[in-house]
Amino acid sequence: MIRRLPKYRRCLLELKNSGVQRISSRELSRITGLTASQIRQDLNNFGGFGQQGYGYNVEELFDEVGGILGLDKEYTVVMVGFGNLGQAVSNYLQNKEGFELCGIFDVNPALIGSERCGLTVSAATELEEYLKGNEVDIGIIATDKGSAQSVADMLSKAGVKGIWNFAPLDLVVPESVMLENVHLSDSLYTLAYYISEHEK
Amino acid sequence: MIRRLPKYRRCLLELKNSGVQRISSRELSRITGLTASQIRQDLNNFGGFGQQGYGYNVEELFDEVGGILGLDKEYTVVMVGFGNLGQAVSNYLQNKEGFELCGIFDVNPALIGSERCGLTVSAATELEEYLKGNEVDIGIIATDKGSAQSVADMLSKAGVKGIWNFAPLDLVVPESVMLENVHLSDSLYTLAYYISEHEK
Repeated sequence: MIRRLPKYRRCLLELKNSGVQRISSRELSRITGLTASQIRQDLNNFGGFGQQGYGYNVEELFDEVGGILGLDKEYTVVMVGFGNLGQAVSNYLQNKEGFELCGIFDVNPALIGSERCGLTVSAATELEEYLKGNEVDIGIIATDKGSAQSVADMLSKAGVKGIWNFAPLDLVVPESVMLENVHLSDSLYTLAYYISEHEK
Repeated sequence: MIRRLPKYRRCLLELKNSGVQRISSRELSRITGLTASQIRQDLNNFGGFGQQGYGYNVEELFDEVGGILGLDKEYTVVMVGFGNLGQAVSNYLQNKEGFELCGIFDVNPALIGSERCGLTVSAATELEEYLKGNEVDIGIIATDKGSAQSVADMLSKAGVKGIWNFAPLDLVVPESVMLENVHLSDSLYTLAYYISEHEK
């Protein structure tokens, strides 16, 4: 279910922004591509806001889904690695409520000291010191493959709650650190697989 | 299983590059974090290269997994949207065997006409014409949210086999077009969820 929650949230945000106040599971099904019964089951799991003949209150459900996703909290975030991908993810975070980017680190001398996303890019060598003096909830790793594990170790040691990893490897982190990966290869290969299967 | 195949491939590539010639399901389990019985079941599903007491031949298994993933073919690819994310994904593709980037399109006048990734960035308005004269297997959408659906329509109409979508919305495409999404929000919210659950 957790993989479907963000989808519900995205869909409900759209509806909310379009001024829609309530929605049926059938309509949600049409928009999300999930079956209405799947949707009812998921949404009943966390409170059952739906009312027969009325549907779901969009705003309530949106808040509820956000709460379950832990989006009613504020997270401090550091970005480690500020190449194209790090920049793209940082830009993305700028418009994201609940996630405050508070540090950017990179090894590139051309970037260090420059103002980006309202912050001054720091040298990667300063990360360890920074983590000692600042409470960081989430560390984002957008470094190259070779540096990613040592950055993950440093973040874990400093007590971050989660790591969002964009580097193309399987990091090893303590059980207390939640790890979420965006592996471009996995996604591209999945696409290739579906294309290949479809052609058979 | 398809979601695990890229992980097997990534792991086998590492092993291959490190000169490892054979590997047991137990060892694969240690590296991937999947159970040995899960691995045996998955790998038996497509041929059963494993031999009792010997394990798997790394190179054979790597090729086999690649074949199932459709990576024994060549795909022509266009990139639509060349902001930070488009650039990051294009750089990533440069080192990717089997995927040939053959066109880059953007709306930004500062980018159009410049040389990037060995190609000249074209105006997004030229995409439709380009698709008429060139066979494209995969279209990558890294545009903003507002343009993504119309780009998807154009790509679908031109007969691409797959769309790799990075724009933050649920695209509607014909059934003949395979769609794979990289939704940053879904991934970030999943991380927030796990952090939030872990703190309970």
